Amino acid sequence: MTAPELERIYHRYLACLNAQAWLELGAFVHDSVIHNSRHLGLTGYRDMLKRDFIEIPDLHFKAELLIVQPPRLASRLHFNCTPRAKFLRIDVNGKKVSFAENVMYEFADGKIVRVWSVVDKAAIEAQLATPVPGSAA
Amino acid sequence: MTAPELERIYHRYLACLNAQAWLELGAFVHDSVIHNSRHLGLTGYRDMLKRDFIEIPDLHFKAELLIVQPPRLASRLHFNCTPRAKFLRIDVNGKKVSFAENVMYEFADGKIVRVWSVVDKAAIEAQLATPVPGSAA
Repeated sequence: MTAPELERIYHRYLACLNAQAWLELGAFVHDSVIHNSRHLGLTGYRDMLKRDFIEIPDLHFKAELLIVQPPRLASRLHFNCTPRAKFLRIDVNGKKVSFAENVMYEFADGKIVRVWSVVDKAAIEAQLATPVPGSAA
Repeated sequence: MTAPELERIYHRYLACLNAQAWLELGAFVHDSVIHNSRHLGLTGYRDMLKRDFIEIPDLHFKAELLIVQPPRLASRLHFNCTPRAKFLRIDVNGKKVSFAENVMYEFADGKIVRVWSVVDKAAIEAQLATPVPGSAA
């Protein structure tokens, strides 16, 4: 598979997530997918994503940077969203937050088989930090 | 520049960091480097790294996964180290922690000009979390 082909598949995968088209997820994600060392499988992976959308109703996946070397692809995802309550154990409670996720994927047979993801938790915490007392409003 | 050439430069860059060969850093890092939207420049970048080694004396950079598409490169770095006190605002206080950093670089003229980095803060917190009272030792 060429880099442009893999990039096209990845954009269709993100469109599938954004449409919450869960019945189509198996076209992009392998039955035995591993996410950050956890053997989720397609069902567990779908459950994780469904939970994300319940916790963050305005969740939207947008890639702002791609690095493609088949069979692998790295993506910097940018989020601008409103988690209802806790997210990554942070009490976000309906505030709007912006943050990045740097994520790497390995594909087999055109489907995602491994994911290595890191979400920028520190950026979210910084946005929710209480201003220093006495600082300008 | 080809992918194998860029990969070789990157490995030499990591060796430079691990040797704390600060006088050689300018061979790998551009004068006007930007790190996570901060215009650090070579001097600011070097200062950031020096500070990292003071705060984490046994810091060692090891790439466990590379995705290379010139002029960009993505790396998953694995750390197994002992921050003296606070790290990412977490009170690590001399405990050994293992964590990943997913980082993306853009090169120009063979040198790093942009860095987009996310460190897995949640993984560090999970390792330092107090066990639930009443759980098995």
